[in-house]
Amino acid sequence: MSSTRVLALSGGVGGAKLALGLQRMLAPGALTVVANTGDDFEHLGLSISPDVDTILYTLSGRANPETGWGRAEETWHFMTELEHLGGETWFRLGDRDLALHVERTRRLHAGERPTSIVRDFATRLGVQSRVIPMSDDPVRTMLETDAGWLAFQEYFVRRKCAPGVTAIHYEGAQYARPPTDLVEALATDYFSAVVICPSNPFLSIDPVLAIPGWRAALHETRTPVIAVSPIIAAAAVKGPTAKLMRELGLDVSAAEIASHYEDLLDGFIIDTSDSHLSERLEMPVHVTPTLMLSLQDKEALATAVLKFAASLSGNTCMRRAYR
Amino acid sequence: MSSTRVLALSGGVGGAKLALGLQRMLAPGALTVVANTGDDFEHLGLSISPDVDTILYTLSGRANPETGWGRAEETWHFMTELEHLGGETWFRLGDRDLALHVERTRRLHAGERPTSIVRDFATRLGVQSRVIPMSDDPVRTMLETDAGWLAFQEYFVRRKCAPGVTAIHYEGAQYARPPTDLVEALATDYFSAVVICPSNPFLSIDPVLAIPGWRAALHETRTPVIAVSPIIAAAAVKGPTAKLMRELGLDVSAAEIASHYEDLLDGFIIDTSDSHLSERLEMPVHVTPTLMLSLQDKEALATAVLKFAASLSGNTCMRRAYR
Repeated sequence: MSSTRVLALSGGVGGAKLALGLQRMLAPGALTVVANTGDDFEHLGLSISPDVDTILYTLSGRANPETGWGRAEETWHFMTELEHLGGETWFRLGDRDLALHVERTRRLHAGERPTSIVRDFATRLGVQSRVIPMSDDPVRTMLETDAGWLAFQEYFVRRKCAPGVTAIHYEGAQYARPPTDLVEALATDYFSAVVICPSNPFLSIDPVLAIPGWRAALHETRTPVIAVSPIIAAAAVKGPTAKLMRELGLDVSAAEIASHYEDLLDGFIIDTSDSHLSERLEMPVHVTPTLMLSLQDKEALATAVLKFAASLSGNTCMRRAYR
Repeated sequence: MSSTRVLALSGGVGGAKLALGLQRMLAPGALTVVANTGDDFEHLGLSISPDVDTILYTLSGRANPETGWGRAEETWHFMTELEHLGGETWFRLGDRDLALHVERTRRLHAGERPTSIVRDFATRLGVQSRVIPMSDDPVRTMLETDAGWLAFQEYFVRRKCAPGVTAIHYEGAQYARPPTDLVEALATDYFSAVVICPSNPFLSIDPVLAIPGWRAALHETRTPVIAVSPIIAAAAVKGPTAKLMRELGLDVSAAEIASHYEDLLDGFIIDTSDSHLSERLEMPVHVTPTLMLSLQDKEALATAVLKFAASLSGNTCMRRAYR
C-alpha cells in the first residue's frame, strides 16, 4: 500500500492507538492525523493541548503505556514542589511533559501558529506522520451539566466526568477555519481514505465536525470516509463515552455511533462482539476485533481499516445516495 | 540576642550563606533579607528571580550544597526534553525549581506583586525569616562589555562572564520604590543592624543602592550598617567579582570594597588573611574568618557580625562624621 495516503481524525488515547497502527502499516509520511483541539486550555499560564500531545507521544513511542496519556518514564518533581507552593495540582503535569507546554506557550506568545509549532515538534520528536491541529483558531468544548456550564478539563479531569451532561457546545467552532491544504486535498483524490478513529464522538470528533469547513469538506469528498466504533458491546473501552451517551438520551451501541456520523460515512467498522448489528446498519459494515491492547492489535485493526477503505474506493456514490 | 532584628542585603550564593548563618543565630522572624532583583529576567516565558530563589532555597534547607544555587536532589528531565524540542537550554531549569518559576509567573500575570508572592512562597517553604525583593518595580542590571550591552543573565550565564565589562547600568533603578515598611523601619530603631552580605558589590548590592529610596534610607538610618567583604586575599570566593573589579580599573582588595561602600558603612568585616588592611581603613573594622564552607562557618561569621554590629550601636555618629 505504498501509495495509500490516509487522513485520520483523532482525539486522545483511543484514537491515537489506531493512528499508531495506521502509521506502522503505511509508508513513512503517508498518514496525516488531524487532532482535536477542543479540549485545549490554559493552565498555570501554560497552553496545553492534550490530544495533540497524546498523538505526538504515541506516534513517537513516548506515550505512557499504562495510562495512554502523558509520557513514559515520567517523573513528578515539578508537581510535588508546586503542591508545596500552594499551586493548582488537579491537572497533573509531568516533568518531561512540561517541556512541550512551556515551549508551545513561548512560541504561541511569539506569534507562531499552532500548526507550525506542532509540525516542528513532530519533526523533532521523530514522528513519521503529519500531525495537524484541527484548526489554528480556538475552539473550546463546553459542557452544560447539572453543575452548570463546565469547560472540558473542568468536567473531564477536575470533576472526573461526574456531573450529568445535558448539552455540549463547541465554542468558536463556527468561526474556525480548517487547514486549507487538507480541505483542498480532500477535494482531490490525494487521500485514499478518511478514518474517524474510535475516539469519543461527542468530545473528540464533534469538535472537528462542528467546524463548518471541515464538515463540508468531509461531506463533499469522494474519498471514502469510514469510522471505527468506540463502543464495543454497549460499553466504551475507556473514558466517559457510555455515560455521556446515556445522559444525552442515546442508546449505548455501535449502531447509535453509526447513526451519529451517518451522513458522513461510507463505511463503519464494528467489533466482532457486535456482529449482530451489521444487518441493521444501512451502510457497508466491516466486522473485526477492535479492542487494541497490544501493538499487534493496533496493526491488525489498521490493516482491516485500510482493506475495508480500499474496498469502498470508487463506491462513494452509495453514500451520496442515502444522504 | 532575642530582641535583635537584622536587615540583610543579599545577592545569591555568597550572600545567602551568611543569611542562613544569621537566621540560625537569631530568633525566628528576626531576620529580614532584602534580595537583589537586578538579575531577574524573562526566559521561556517564565519570570525568573534567581537571587530571591537562591535565598528561599538556602533559608529553607533546599539549596543544592554543591552549586549553592538551584535545588538539592534536582532532576533535569524537563531540560532534556526541551532540548529535544529545540528549546533554549543555556539557562538550566531543574524539574523541582520550575515550580517556583511557573507559579510566580502565573501569579504575576494575575496581577499580584512580587513582594506578596515571595512572602507567600517563604511561608509555604517554611522559611523562618522575611524575604523581600528589593522593589516591586523592575530593575535590570545591564553590562556594557567589549561584546556590546548585555543583560545580566546573557553576561553571567550564557557568556560565562567572559566579555570584559566597562560599565554597569541598573535600568529602572531611578524610578524604583523600596518597600515602604522597611524604609520606615530604618527611620526607627526597629532593626539592630543592617548587614551588607558578602555578595558581589557591583552585580548584587549596587542594584539595591541604585534605588534612590534605598540609598537614602541606608544613608540616614541610625541603625549600624556593616558590610562583610566578598574579597578575601585579593580574590573573590566565587563568581566574577575579582575579574570585574580588574576590568573596572579597581584594586582587587577588601579595602577597595570598603571604599566602594564607604559613605554607608559604620563598620567593615574582613577576613583574617586581610588583617594587615585593618589599619588602612578609616572606619571600625573587625577581623574574623569569613570563608563559609560549613554550616559552622556560617554560624560563626553570623555571630561575629552580630557582635560587631552590637559594639557599634549608638556610635553611628562616627559614620556621619566622615560622610
